[in-house]
Amino acid sequence: MIALAQFGAGRIGQIHARNVASTEGARLKYVIDVNEAAAQSLAAAVGARMSDCDAALADPEVAAVIIGSSTDTHAELIEASARAGKAIFCEKPIDLDLQRTRACLEVVRETGVPLFIGFNRRFDPSFAGLKAALAEGRIGRLENLTITSRDPAPPPADYVARSGGLFRDMMIHDFDMARWLLGAEPVRLYARGSVLVDPAIGKAGDIDSAVVVLETAAGVLCQIINSRRAAYGYDQRIEAFGEHGLLLAGNRDARSLETWSDAGIAGEKPLHFFLERYAEAYRAEMAHFLACLAGKEEPKVAAADGLRALELAEAANLSLKTGQAVNFKAERDLAPSAP
Amino acid sequence: MIALAQFGAGRIGQIHARNVASTEGARLKYVIDVNEAAAQSLAAAVGARMSDCDAALADPEVAAVIIGSSTDTHAELIEASARAGKAIFCEKPIDLDLQRTRACLEVVRETGVPLFIGFNRRFDPSFAGLKAALAEGRIGRLENLTITSRDPAPPPADYVARSGGLFRDMMIHDFDMARWLLGAEPVRLYARGSVLVDPAIGKAGDIDSAVVVLETAAGVLCQIINSRRAAYGYDQRIEAFGEHGLLLAGNRDARSLETWSDAGIAGEKPLHFFLERYAEAYRAEMAHFLACLAGKEEPKVAAADGLRALELAEAANLSLKTGQAVNFKAERDLAPSAP
Amino acid sequence: MIALAQFGAGRIGQIHARNVASTEGARLKYVIDVNEAAAQSLAAAVGARMSDCDAALADPEVAAVIIGSSTDTHAELIEASARAGKAIFCEKPIDLDLQRTRACLEVVRETGVPLFIGFNRRFDPSFAGLKAALAEGRIGRLENLTITSRDPAPPPADYVARSGGLFRDMMIHDFDMARWLLGAEPVRLYARGSVLVDPAIGKAGDIDSAVVVLETAAGVLCQIINSRRAAYGYDQRIEAFGEHGLLLAGNRDARSLETWSDAGIAGEKPLHFFLERYAEAYRAEMAHFLACLAGKEEPKVAAADGLRALELAEAANLSLKTGQAVNFKAERDLAPSAP
Amino acid sequence: MIALAQFGAGRIGQIHARNVASTEGARLKYVIDVNEAAAQSLAAAVGARMSDCDAALADPEVAAVIIGSSTDTHAELIEASARAGKAIFCEKPIDLDLQRTRACLEVVRETGVPLFIGFNRRFDPSFAGLKAALAEGRIGRLENLTITSRDPAPPPADYVARSGGLFRDMMIHDFDMARWLLGAEPVRLYARGSVLVDPAIGKAGDIDSAVVVLETAAGVLCQIINSRRAAYGYDQRIEAFGEHGLLLAGNRDARSLETWSDAGIAGEKPLHFFLERYAEAYRAEMAHFLACLAGKEEPKVAAADGLRALELAEAANLSLKTGQAVNFKAERDLAPSAP
Repeated sequence: MIALAQFGAGRIGQIHARNVASTEGARLKYVIDVNEAAAQSLAAAVGARMSDCDAALADPEVAAVIIGSSTDTHAELIEASARAGKAIFCEKPIDLDLQRTRACLEVVRETGVPLFIGFNRRFDPSFAGLKAALAEGRIGRLENLTITSRDPAPPPADYVARSGGLFRDMMIHDFDMARWLLGAEPVRLYARGSVLVDPAIGKAGDIDSAVVVLETAAGVLCQIINSRRAAYGYDQRIEAFGEHGLLLAGNRDARSLETWSDAGIAGEKPLHFFLERYAEAYRAEMAHFLACLAGKEEPKVAAADGLRALELAEAANLSLKTGQAVNFKAERDLAPSAP
Repeated sequence: MIALAQFGAGRIGQIHARNVASTEGARLKYVIDVNEAAAQSLAAAVGARMSDCDAALADPEVAAVIIGSSTDTHAELIEASARAGKAIFCEKPIDLDLQRTRACLEVVRETGVPLFIGFNRRFDPSFAGLKAALAEGRIGRLENLTITSRDPAPPPADYVARSGGLFRDMMIHDFDMARWLLGAEPVRLYARGSVLVDPAIGKAGDIDSAVVVLETAAGVLCQIINSRRAAYGYDQRIEAFGEHGLLLAGNRDARSLETWSDAGIAGEKPLHFFLERYAEAYRAEMAHFLACLAGKEEPKVAAADGLRALELAEAANLSLKTGQAVNFKAERDLAPSAP
Repeated sequence: MIALAQFGAGRIGQIHARNVASTEGARLKYVIDVNEAAAQSLAAAVGARMSDCDAALADPEVAAVIIGSSTDTHAELIEASARAGKAIFCEKPIDLDLQRTRACLEVVRETGVPLFIGFNRRFDPSFAGLKAALAEGRIGRLENLTITSRDPAPPPADYVARSGGLFRDMMIHDFDMARWLLGAEPVRLYARGSVLVDPAIGKAGDIDSAVVVLETAAGVLCQIINSRRAAYGYDQRIEAFGEHGLLLAGNRDARSLETWSDAGIAGEKPLHFFLERYAEAYRAEMAHFLACLAGKEEPKVAAADGLRALELAEAANLSLKTGQAVNFKAERDLAPSAP
Repeated sequence: MIALAQFGAGRIGQIHARNVASTEGARLKYVIDVNEAAAQSLAAAVGARMSDCDAALADPEVAAVIIGSSTDTHAELIEASARAGKAIFCEKPIDLDLQRTRACLEVVRETGVPLFIGFNRRFDPSFAGLKAALAEGRIGRLENLTITSRDPAPPPADYVARSGGLFRDMMIHDFDMARWLLGAEPVRLYARGSVLVDPAIGKAGDIDSAVVVLETAAGVLCQIINSRRAAYGYDQRIEAFGEHGLLLAGNRDARSLETWSDAGIAGEKPLHFFLERYAEAYRAEMAHFLACLAGKEEPKVAAADGLRALELAEAANLSLKTGQAVNFKAERDLAPSAP
């Protein structure tokens, strides 16, 4: 029985806590949150206890931590947990600042604990199926990749202000997806963005609509298309084009129901948002983390993946600012990323 | 150059005339219609002359006739044309009366002219593709067949009154389709019908909604589903189920255009009605008839097909009346039907 | 906290037990099975104890039972549980024999305990959505219903021999679905069936392919199409046609992934079988039963539904034998069924 | 009756000639081609005469010309026809050289004859439907556009060598489509391309895979994705994203036929190539040109459209070479383009 402590009892924390609770061989021992009522309530629901950071990390029975608290606490909690010798599952991003991220990863490297970044979309059945089909050569060599990612509705402007911006907050998932599916590091990036959805986002210094083009050394191109709002709901699609064909992972809906009427042939909107669309991905991601802890699986996401996605986000900000493409030097001083 | 005469300058006549006109090696020489203005106008449009029945049939240059006039003239025109030694293309049905139909076919048999019944749906690319896939064994042995056929809007009650009723006017196409796809004659038929769409149709002594179950000696079952009205338009679909899978020929729309909105994911309605949906089928059917006349193809539809479809319609009327299934005797005194 | 006892630790029992276990406010206290190892294992997994029938029913803390044991034990267990005053959830059918079923329901009636029949498909999101759309008038008055239901692979012949036959074992689900969606009792039934899939099923005295036509007093027709095998997997679809359009509940797949290649545009096969396709339905069904026990919801399925579906199966057997339609008398001595 | 002369009797010439021949009120009087046998054969098929350039342009009955000869003859034929006072329909491009194109357009401007560029895709029912839906505000303001355009198979390397390259030969259609749908001139362009399909194309100095990002002054972004080869056939799709939703114009297939089997749910490949996919567009385009000549419609494509698309292709070549984005100055010395 593996015991875990979890930082954060919010929306995403509740999902992780319940997924741990329903896994045989694992249990959540502590829930820690600055909101004590939330911590108490979640702890009660999953058979854990409310605690504080020091106590939880001091408990030798705790083998691993789940960090689902606010972004600005991630780096510190990672370092504290690493120094306490705990395996770490942390929601993205490690930190919004690249230097802070690198420093944090250096601590992790020194302690040697495994750090698993919550790039949940890799565990979505459709996207994982697409990756598996690519790996088995179903479309031969990959030649082009289109990632479309649109949220159902824009976040409040005050969220935007502290989010780190579209590239670091939203497209970071797509950067990770692109790297994972391309199977190669981009060597060039071009980013454009606009404020088309909500002027308040522009006032907060951010953009709400963006396109990025990535390019590998082999000349494979990848377009990422983002919007903070889609009238038809959460739009999460990938098209991978290769020498023998195309793989298309489309949106998912909650049920198969069509209405044929004088107005046309109408299907259902996609699953509402990430909690619904990626429910299975969250389950599979946590099951994988726990299986890694149990020595049954090899980690599919590494700390370096978190860093590299952030570097791409930074490059996108630079490209947006200059209006020109950013070239990466070929050699990198990165720890090798997970497959 | 094959010269033809055409009886009928109405909606379907215009289609056939233009299809003949655009075929190399064939030309329409005469158009005959009780509506002289219509005959004149169509003749002018396709480079033909208005004429009358006797004159057209007396012209030895005329090798074949197209009968697209009103149903009550079919049998007489078939007989006159047959006696004049012309090859015949006739719109379904030969006649609404079974005895009259048999007498007419006897005349045709005696004269030895080919008689081709206009079961145009056999020439629809989707249905012809389904038939070809069946023939090549793509789903192995056929086990079940579902034919769905719904018109966009009910005909006027006065049309219904002289139409011969739903089974002889509308489902006759589906009876032919069923026989063609089953590749075997039904040995049992069960029919049910209701007046659900328009009470005026019931007052005219007909039904507007019907289901028929056909059964072959081998135990293959076929359901035919008809309605005189579908709010979403012309509904023409076939599902063929067999040991290795299912073939589905769906509706066709005019263009591929989806609208994704807050109201859902909406596609286009099907092509409006038979003139639109079966435009290609009409072309292919006439091309086939002309190719048969030129000795380049073997007829795919025979006179007996028209008779047998009418026999099934009569049986459906009987079943509807008695509330019970109708069994056919195994031996038949039918001329063998086309493949 | 509602405590329950469960009879049966097989495939379906495991699903129900885990669904109870993950519901707040309910717990499974006892698992009973003739296979003690299975009972022990399941009990351990969900925090229950292995027990026997008498002990479990004697425990006043047990408010309700779940009967998921073999069909031949259902009636007896229902009666014993009813006499012990327990609310009952029982998998379909109550019994394969109509007289035995009626006698059992009489006992239930006398004791006054609620009896809930496990017609899980009513809780499938797609079918429940279709029902809700019908109820809200999205297609106006219902005029025709097509229920297609095919299993991925035929059961072993020895299962067939004790199953009660296709109509009572397999189509019984579709009879219930038809009654539920029609919102009216059939007044006429016509059934045909064949052995096309596996001769061993014929030797066991059953059929493996069938079509049934139901008809309501209002003239609404419903076709049910069954096969014991579909090469492409579990085929569970419903089309409801009405004055304003058509509702189509299609198959579900596990993920949205298409492969476009030289071979065409290929999608995924449907979810494998009932455990996969109806996983959500099983969860929703048990949640509903528990909510009824807690007085929070009104039962959506009644004992009479189980009886009426069995009566239709018996009528189908009669129709199949005689080759003729079966008419039902208008008046019925049934307890009113659930909405 | 409008009389026309046509230059070119090749593949595209045959399509235009037959479309003219089947239009009431118009007739093709002359066909001119360096391949006399081809000219003779096509002229015979459509009731025209073979002729030569001077004779055809000298005939005062000839009101308009269709230029479908090889690209290197376009500019000269346009100028000669303009000087002869003929209205002109010319296949894209006017010329591969920007200066030559401008000089040619200056001649056209001086003579005042109408020059219509054959951007046939604007007349495709799906794309025209998408444009109409945009114009009527179905998705509100346009925010992003994705144009995917892939050929079924790469051209021979010697064709590539004289084609002007992917941007001027292939993507030029997409540049026109982008301008037409954006309803605004791009102010920035970024292009990337690779040789992934056929090394022979690289040896010929061209690319076979490309992505271009266009941007309007309002910040609307448009991605164009090209490949010279798609294993699944001709891939012609557009996604227009706006504030109220998304419009998707997908591929078209020849018939609606699905095969459900153990291998999955398979649909048909798209219509093979441009002759099949755009057959309706060619008809509609010619009908529009003839209607403009007859004064019944206003031209929907202008000479300036041909120039502007070529300018974008040149900019793409520049961007590809420099690896950086190209900015256009806001003021333009272009004749106003067609709506």
